[in-house]
This record gives sequence, structure tokens and C-alpha cells, in this order.
Amino acid sequence: MSFIPSSRQTILTGDRTTGPLHIGHYAGSLRNRVALQYDHDQFLLLANCQAITDNASELGKSEGFRAGKGPNHVIEVALDYLAAGIDPAVTTICVQSELPALAELSLLYLNFVSVARLERNPTVKEEIKLRGFMRDVPAGFLCYPAAQAADITAFRATLVPAGADQAPMIELSNEIVRRINRQVQKDILPEAKILTPPVGRLPAPNGKGKMSKSLGTVISLSASDDQISDVVMSMYTDPDHIRTSDPGRVEGNVVFTYLDAFDDRAEEVQDLKMRYQRGGVGDVTLKRRLIGVLQGVIAPIRERRFEFGRRPDYVMDILATGARKGRAITDDTKRCIEDHLGIFRLR
Amino acid sequence: MSFIPSSRQTILTGDRTTGPLHIGHYAGSLRNRVALQYDHDQFLLLANCQAITDNASELGKSEGFRAGKGPNHVIEVALDYLAAGIDPAVTTICVQSELPALAELSLLYLNFVSVARLERNPTVKEEIKLRGFMRDVPAGFLCYPAAQAADITAFRATLVPAGADQAPMIELSNEIVRRINRQVQKDILPEAKILTPPVGRLPAPNGKGKMSKSLGTVISLSASDDQISDVVMSMYTDPDHIRTSDPGRVEGNVVFTYLDAFDDRAEEVQDLKMRYQRGGVGDVTLKRRLIGVLQGVIAPIRERRFEFGRRPDYVMDILATGARKGRAITDDTKRCIEDHLGIFRLR
Repeated sequence: MSFIPSSRQTILTGDRTTGPLHIGHYAGSLRNRVALQYDHDQFLLLANCQAITDNASELGKSEGFRAGKGPNHVIEVALDYLAAGIDPAVTTICVQSELPALAELSLLYLNFVSVARLERNPTVKEEIKLRGFMRDVPAGFLCYPAAQAADITAFRATLVPAGADQAPMIELSNEIVRRINRQVQKDILPEAKILTPPVGRLPAPNGKGKMSKSLGTVISLSASDDQISDVVMSMYTDPDHIRTSDPGRVEGNVVFTYLDAFDDRAEEVQDLKMRYQRGGVGDVTLKRRLIGVLQGVIAPIRERRFEFGRRPDYVMDILATGARKGRAITDDTKRCIEDHLGIFRLR
Repeated sequence: MSFIPSSRQTILTGDRTTGPLHIGHYAGSLRNRVALQYDHDQFLLLANCQAITDNASELGKSEGFRAGKGPNHVIEVALDYLAAGIDPAVTTICVQSELPALAELSLLYLNFVSVARLERNPTVKEEIKLRGFMRDVPAGFLCYPAAQAADITAFRATLVPAGADQAPMIELSNEIVRRINRQVQKDILPEAKILTPPVGRLPAPNGKGKMSKSLGTVISLSASDDQISDVVMSMYTDPDHIRTSDPGRVEGNVVFTYLDAFDDRAEEVQDLKMRYQRGGVGDVTLKRRLIGVLQGVIAPIRERRFEFGRRPDYVMDILATGARKGRAITDDTKRCIEDHLGIFRLR
């Protein structure tokens, strides 16, 4: 019996396991999770089932797997978590496919949401367009917000750190929560709040759209000093800033966006921006600074990642422990919902 | 190691657990299952998850449950199976919600079928119209054919006894089987064949549409002699057959349809039809014959049902044994599919 008041919030977040994470994930989510983990009950989901919803045709192709494509990069992402500073003693890392209650609740929740409601989801709409699915959208892709609701509620999460574009997902989850609570006339599931990151989504180094593995110019969390240097030296700045003495633009200048995201000395960056806008600061000066900053961020992550990569048994132990803990809480939530809905259960 | 050639077919079939079964189920499916069970590996699924796909709003309402509505009538249907002669020593009776692999495979299969493909399913189309769902169709209802494919393949069924209207479901299941087998370049899943029953769907006693619990005039498998008599005496015959001496119509005459389905003395029924058509046979004569036949069919079922109903522990033991066997085979199929698709698994 514990007398510690349970005012701690439960966090659920995670990643589709479609490949190793990159510095954009670090800026937007990973480092926040590291900061949040000691004051919250944090669960990280390696979402390898959700990863299939738009990658099913890649399954079973070992070539694709080796080339770093496809939805089966569970270990890669787990290594990224540990390397970035996720502490498995306080954060529970779970592999989605190891928790059957998530699939069972997903299927149940599909009965509490209409096809029209799923089709109205703006994020899914946008992603359907982006992936060129149109009418051939896989049913699993249309339905994944219901599966996400299962993830969130199965862990009884009250906080979901995610980009602002994920707000409609969390709203749908809360709709399902309210419908079930109303139907059983008891608040058996908590609603969740979104927690948007302080740093928005980083642009691709070439300035075109968001960072994406498929563009090939991302900085991975195991990038070498030379790779970091190469990517930064090719970064988009201000195409009209020809000579050092020319005034330069800061808005849309990817190097400054990255400096804002990663450079701890914010005042120096502010000063640099003013001088760049006036004229007299060359792009190479900016880029050298960013290279130094990024190399400083990446080096310890890369080293830890290498070390963890040499201890596969240790990583598997962490995932096994996470699966045990995750099964306990998600099975418990599932049983609670089933009991209240009157669904048959063998004792 | 067994040297018995495995030429036996595996059967999967079952019922949504939306209420006790009636004499229409007996004629169309139950008695065939009893006949098939000794020569096949037969699994019967108490489909309490599928039952939710068009009944979610009934969940958690104990009133509805007591009134015989809602999707939670697992025990009722199990009693019907046992009473009708299903032998748990040779037929495995499984409760759907006790087999998590079915939900996991359902969710996986949703990635292998497009929304457009599900919407084209003629049976689902028809049922959506029938239930008045239109655009508010629950996602679970649109998706249930993929869940049925999971049921069929998880048991590696090769024969699915079902009405002809279920043919599109089995075709979809086979499509998913072919797609997965092609993708992993190995026939890891068998295709299934439909086995349509010799007797078609029985009409409602009033001759309007198919038998349906909600019409209130079905003959349940625990109907008393008086209840049987009452329903048959009110049955639709030939409205133009006023006097005994009038010639009567056989087509559309519900009493003859039921006699065809249940009366073992087919030659006598043929003779009766000829005499009825000529004139000289009264409706009461027909109905008295049918009452006798149906009372003879129902009496032993009703008695066994009563006896099993007094032994709930025995029934629960049968379901527990079924769940154990069902989990073994469905988990095994799921693991086989996951391994071939390269999905992560601990150990």
C-alpha cells in the first residue's frame, strides 16, 4: 500500500519502426522524452504494427530490410532511444506486436467509430494524398487512428507528446473514451492531452519540405563527423546572399533554423542573425558553427549507440522487460473495458 | 510422429452470439455440423467480437442482455451447440474473444485489403442497406470480412460451411491468402472452399423474409410443444386455399417448405403435395403433420439443452478446453505468418 499521491501523469508516445531515427526526431521528440522521463510514468511504443499500415508490400522482403527500408526496424529504433538517453529504469519501452491487447482493443474501438468519421480525419486525408493512395488506401491505414486510440487508452495515458498535426488523432481517441465511459456510465478510461514539442518540425537540409529518410540527406543519430559536415555544407541558406558583405535573410535559412534548434548559446545566435542580416557574415561561418554544434550533439549519441549495438542481449532484455510491464497494464485495461461492456471472459 | 495421412479437411464455422439459435439455424447449419464432425477437424467459433460489429451500442446494457438482445449471448449459443448434438470430444468450440491471435491477424490483414475492396463486398453492401447504416457504418462493420479472413486462416481451415451469401467473404479471405503467400514466396496459408448447406435459408413462419429473432415468431431450440404448435398453426400457407376441397399452392407455402426441411418421410410429403394441389387436403392436416415433426425434432434438443443448462461448470470447462486448443493453433499460425513477414518477435 502506497501513500504517495498518484499525481504523476502517464505519457505514451513512440515511433513507427520504419527506419533509424534522425536528428529531426532528436530535436522534436527524443530529447523531450529524456527530459520528461523522471517526472512522469513514460511508455515508449515501438509501433511496428502501425508501421505496416502504409508499408505492407515491403513485408517479407529481406532485401528491403537490409537496405534500411520497410516497417521492421524495431531494434534500430530501440538503439536510438537508448543512445539518446532514454533510461529503461524509468521509461518502459514496448514493442507493439508483443502486446496483443492493443490489437484486441483496436478491433473493439473500430465498432465505436464510423467510416465517415475516419475519412474526415484531416491528418489521414493529408497522408492519403501524400502517399498517393486515393481510393486504394489500405483499410489498415484508414483505421490506424482507432488503433492509436487503443495504444493511448490501453496505457491509460493522460499526456501524449506529439506534433500539432497529431491533434485530430488524440481528439478521436478522446471521443472513443467519452463514448465508452458514457455507455458504461463510469469513467473507466481517462482522456488524454497532447503535449506539443517546443521545437517544431525541422526542415530538410535542402529546405524542401520536412526531413525524410527517402530524400537521403538526413543526419542520422549515428552520423560521423564527416557526414554531418557534408550535409551542413550543402544546406540551403539564402540564395541571394552571394558575397559575405551582402545582407542575408534569416527566415527560411535552414542553417539558422537548425542553430535555433540545437545551439545552446541562444544570445550568440541572436547576435549572429543580426550581423548576418546587416551583411558581413559569410555562409561558411554559419555552417562551421552549426557543424560544431551538431557534432557535439551527435558524438555521445553515436558512441552510446555503438556500445549498445554490441550488446544485443542487453537490448533484448530491455524489450522483454518492457513487454512484460506493457502486457500487464494493457491486459488490465482490456479486461476492465470488457468487464464493463459485458464481454464474455473465461476465468 | 504420426503416419496417418492428413487428408482430413479442417472446418471453421460458427455464429455471431447475438442470441439463442432457432430452428432455422438447426436446418441450415447445426445439423450439418453434427453430421460433419466425425470426418473433419471441426472448429466452431462463438463469434462474440464479430457480434459487436453491428451491436456496439448494446454493450454494457444489462437490461438489453436480460431481454435477449445484444452481442453477449456466448453461453446461450454454446448450449444450443451441445443440445443439437455437437460433440466436444471431436468438435472444438472456441470463444472468439479468448483468442487474441484473431484480433492480431485481423489488424494485420486490414493492411492487405483496400477500403474500396471492402466497400465493393456485395454482402456487406446489402447488410449496410438492411441495417440503415449508410455513411455512418461503423468501421468495424466495414472491416469484418477481414476479421473473418483472420478467423478462417488462423485455424488453417480448408472448408467453410456457410450460406451462398457468404461466398464473397471467403473469396476475400482467399485473396488475402494469395497475396501473403505470393509476398513470402511460399504457400504458408491454405485457401478455403465454401460448403453450402443442402437446405436453403428457411422463411419466417409468416412467409415474410427470412427468420429473424426480432420478428418474434421464430421457433427456438428450447420451444415447448405448445409454442411449436402455436407458431405452426399461424403459419402462412396459400391465402386462396379457403375450403378443403379447393386446390392449393405448394410454392411459397411455408408449411411445405418446413416439411421439406424437417420431415424424413420425403415420399409421403411428395404425395401430400400432389393431393394438396389437386384439392381435398386441409391446411390443418398439413399443420398437424408439421407440428408432430417439429415436436419430434425439438424435444430431445430442448431436453439436452435443459440438462446442459444445469451444469454451467461443465459448459465452462468445454469452453476452456476449446480456448486452449484454439489458442494453440491460432497462435501458431500467427507466429508462422509473422516470421515469414519478418515481424519482430522476442526470443
